Amino acid sequence: MRFEVTILGCSSATPTSNRFPTAQVINLLERFFLVDCGEGTQMQMRKYKIKMQSINHVFISHLHGDHYFGLVGLLSTMHLLGRKAPLYLYAHKDLKKIIDIQLNSSDTYLNYEIIFHPLRYDEKEVLVDDKLYSIETIILKHRIQCCGFLFKEKAREKGVRRDKIKEYNIPYTVIPSIKKGEDFITEKGETIPNHEITVKPPYPRSYAYCSDTAYIKELSEVVKGVDLLYHEATFMDNMKLRAKETFHSTTLEAASIAKDAGAKKLLIGHYSARYHDTSPLVDEARTIFPDTEASKEGVTYIV
Amino acid sequence: MRFEVTILGCSSATPTSNRFPTAQVINLLERFFLVDCGEGTQMQMRKYKIKMQSINHVFISHLHGDHYFGLVGLLSTMHLLGRKAPLYLYAHKDLKKIIDIQLNSSDTYLNYEIIFHPLRYDEKEVLVDDKLYSIETIILKHRIQCCGFLFKEKAREKGVRRDKIKEYNIPYTVIPSIKKGEDFITEKGETIPNHEITVKPPYPRSYAYCSDTAYIKELSEVVKGVDLLYHEATFMDNMKLRAKETFHSTTLEAASIAKDAGAKKLLIGHYSARYHDTSPLVDEARTIFPDTEASKEGVTYIV
Repeated sequence: MRFEVTILGCSSATPTSNRFPTAQVINLLERFFLVDCGEGTQMQMRKYKIKMQSINHVFISHLHGDHYFGLVGLLSTMHLLGRKAPLYLYAHKDLKKIIDIQLNSSDTYLNYEIIFHPLRYDEKEVLVDDKLYSIETIILKHRIQCCGFLFKEKAREKGVRRDKIKEYNIPYTVIPSIKKGEDFITEKGETIPNHEITVKPPYPRSYAYCSDTAYIKELSEVVKGVDLLYHEATFMDNMKLRAKETFHSTTLEAASIAKDAGAKKLLIGHYSARYHDTSPLVDEARTIFPDTEASKEGVTYIV
Repeated sequence: MRFEVTILGCSSATPTSNRFPTAQVINLLERFFLVDCGEGTQMQMRKYKIKMQSINHVFISHLHGDHYFGLVGLLSTMHLLGRKAPLYLYAHKDLKKIIDIQLNSSDTYLNYEIIFHPLRYDEKEVLVDDKLYSIETIILKHRIQCCGFLFKEKAREKGVRRDKIKEYNIPYTVIPSIKKGEDFITEKGETIPNHEITVKPPYPRSYAYCSDTAYIKELSEVVKGVDLLYHEATFMDNMKLRAKETFHSTTLEAASIAKDAGAKKLLIGHYSARYHDTSPLVDEARTIFPDTEASKEGVTYIV
């Protein structure tokens, strides 16, 4: 079952001739989540063959324009293309007003419902709690209220081997307890150890999206052990004062978070427009955390 | 002296994989005017090498998103790139609120002033009245208040030939009257006819931008004799009922306006996303008005 991240934009505030502002689509078990929606996201979706209407949940980290100026255009296009399914939108409360004033001014009444969830930024919230996964916020530190999002598969129960059910004639009534780890005792009183009749559940994967943020040492605890960590790296280390002033992070800070968290892989992004080539950024991050990649538009990364 | 139009987007409400929503830049004697600003206009400016900060005037025809969703992103980028020069913005009064709520929510204070002119849509207004040109509104008929814009060079005075000034020893004091068409009488009383000592002024050119509109028969009077007429042609003739319902025009309606106005050339645009190829649209328009072209992104048209 797929769990992957497709980058639609990875520029910081000023887009460049080949980098759009922030947006990414998460495919978590064939459910599609849009995270941030910079200007031009709908064009990028067309370019990279993302099915717009497959998206039912949109998460906006904060209200700097490079993270949401593409949203009202996307909502309008979804409407014009006949969407009926409700759309769940998680964002700062002001975004509702920003959308409404624009729809009102154009005398537009959407064919579908937007179910708006205003984010709180003072403490962690669980936004989606599905049987198979959960999505929660990560509190970040930026010039305005900002959060990231943590996508986690839930731990699943063990599977019981069909061949063993047949071999030992295991009744269905005891399956739930075997899934929980109990051994099976046959009619003859023989104990079959749990590991012989079960298969391990799939490993629960996780992805953390840490949008615009100053370096927060404690963040590594929050994203402990994630498989894929996206962390902004607006600047290189020689601009760390500028990073601090603007509440952004450097490559080395992003890499330190990944290292301290014991993440499996780091994806950096949100590059300042001054960096035409991102290889110096990734090279610098790798001095601290070797398994770093520079996010690139149109590329899908496996969690 | 240049007078030309560069198309940055020519799609209607839904952008396609190769057409951005409406935006165009008018170069009128090296002054640059942005007309409409659909989502992604700032990216298109980079792509087609339009100098963003050279634009001092922005005209927004109406508040359907495909005509302005790129504006707040452009304003923000102008700010981030250090703009200080004021920007004149002509649009529906609600646009001011739409911009303000977004700047406020991101805690952004622009480094430059926006001088906002709320358009009236009940009668024609002269928006810019320069020594060399004027820009006025064209009242259109759409689902919400909407206007086009008419860019006109002013008639200039004749030029007085330098060689003749020398030959007849014409004193500078009489130059203004010669420019106005008077003959020159030499010291010996000889009359030199005006046409012998003057050159014709450059022909005053004009460009009419007729954004979203239902067919208005009387529009041809308003744009009488323009050199270049841009008129929307969202649909082909076989969809004229749909055009009527949505307050848009067909290729044949656009061509009729051009013909009745005696325009020199017609540029169509604002194509419905259903037309992947625009050649059937231009072919149809040419049955009524042969000198029609289909506007294309990144192409500059001479007025």
